[in-house]
Amino acid sequence: MKYFLLMLTIMITHEGIGQSDVDPEVQLKKLNIELGKVSPPVATYVKAVQTGNLVYLSGHVPDEVPGKNTRGKVGSQLTVEEGKEAARITAISLITTLKSHVGDLKKVKRIVKVFGMVNADPSFTQHPVVMNGCSDLLVAVFGDRGKHARSAVGMGSLPGNVAVEIEMIVEVE
Amino acid sequence: MKYFLLMLTIMITHEGIGQSDVDPEVQLKKLNIELGKVSPPVATYVKAVQTGNLVYLSGHVPDEVPGKNTRGKVGSQLTVEEGKEAARITAISLITTLKSHVGDLKKVKRIVKVFGMVNADPSFTQHPVVMNGCSDLLVAVFGDRGKHARSAVGMGSLPGNVAVEIEMIVEVE
Amino acid sequence: MKYFLLMLTIMITHEGIGQSDVDPEVQLKKLNIELGKVSPPVATYVKAVQTGNLVYLSGHVPDEVPGKNTRGKVGSQLTVEEGKEAARITAISLITTLKSHVGDLKKVKRIVKVFGMVNADPSFTQHPVVMNGCSDLLVAVFGDRGKHARSAVGMGSLPGNVAVEIEMIVEVE
Repeated sequence: MKYFLLMLTIMITHEGIGQSDVDPEVQLKKLNIELGKVSPPVATYVKAVQTGNLVYLSGHVPDEVPGKNTRGKVGSQLTVEEGKEAARITAISLITTLKSHVGDLKKVKRIVKVFGMVNADPSFTQHPVVMNGCSDLLVAVFGDRGKHARSAVGMGSLPGNVAVEIEMIVEVE
Repeated sequence: MKYFLLMLTIMITHEGIGQSDVDPEVQLKKLNIELGKVSPPVATYVKAVQTGNLVYLSGHVPDEVPGKNTRGKVGSQLTVEEGKEAARITAISLITTLKSHVGDLKKVKRIVKVFGMVNADPSFTQHPVVMNGCSDLLVAVFGDRGKHARSAVGMGSLPGNVAVEIEMIVEVE
Repeated sequence: MKYFLLMLTIMITHEGIGQSDVDPEVQLKKLNIELGKVSPPVATYVKAVQTGNLVYLSGHVPDEVPGKNTRGKVGSQLTVEEGKEAARITAISLITTLKSHVGDLKKVKRIVKVFGMVNADPSFTQHPVVMNGCSDLLVAVFGDRGKHARSAVGMGSLPGNVAVEIEMIVEVE
């Protein structure tokens, strides 16, 4: 019994958030996140380009989700919490595109860089809080491999008045 | 005759837009685009830096072209179409710098990433349309190798009140 | 004596700004710049991620320095010179993080790319002058290896209303 509990603890730790050998697919299930289909880009570009081991993901915007406010300027038309939720929804889109590109998310070696652009009122100052909606999810899904360099900044405007646009650079096997 | 037509078809396809083995120099001539000289940067930086196979191009702005409005905020001072034309003019500048760096544009393996920054009115929403002025030209010149990851976003202000500033990452041989 | 003067000249040239073999640690001392401690990031991300030979530095903001105005919009709340000083202070933070990552700054092969985001009034146009506060210092410290590709642009807002946020890509040994 003691041995069983020890093994269980090891297994939980093994799969826990922040570990470098988490299985992102397992983490997504635990978080009840189902990845949708990749929507086509609005214009003459592609959603992801790989060069060497690096995958560059285009700027992604939040899907329209019923009951969620993802359009509008954070700080005036949207609250900080609504902006954070929009960043989380956008992170799911980024992961969806990434999975479509690499096939299996276990091939992700590192989320290298996240650039978080918040459609914000000129007086807004809490961009990092908004972008935590994305960063927290990446770490929850990828563990230590999800820890990234980041900038969180305020744009004057964004396509379709979305609350956030986020791009990402990912190192893959 | 049939054989000749077949060969002609193959040749046209061979040089057509969207093919991976287009000659960018030939495409530029077809589009009647003559590359100018590289203008010196405004400050203590350089126009392009290569690391490994990747060339990082500095943010480029549209040259002043007689009869074209390339200064002002898109959505209030400039129309969407004027913004799109400014993005096309900026793409020519980027290709000019790229050619100056690599010597022959055939050495370009892939336009990896384009970051399109539009000097826009806070209410502007059509940034992707503006940036198509750049993206469409890149695909016309480089074919499949011109298909890139992209973000198109709205800035609060840009140097000299230019309509767009665009930077680019390119994989070369 | 002639020989001594020749050696002196060689030594000065050897350590001079713009040379490719300057010792960045020596240059920092000459400039009376002491690197501080790395402050922890505000949120769930890290300050630097390395992939291959490239180090991606997160967006850095100016430390609060007594007697310096580093918070506010450049062009309305801050002057161009205050913005430039904020960019210089931010460059010191970037170099501090970089040293903490690589150990010895002599391992820096090239400052590849700088992205300078100025918290600016919508009517502001002198972003390159502001960003020279960063670029000039990088070249003073790293010589030719400090010459980088760059974009200097105007944001609608920035975290904590800082005057600038700057991110950087660096090639290391």
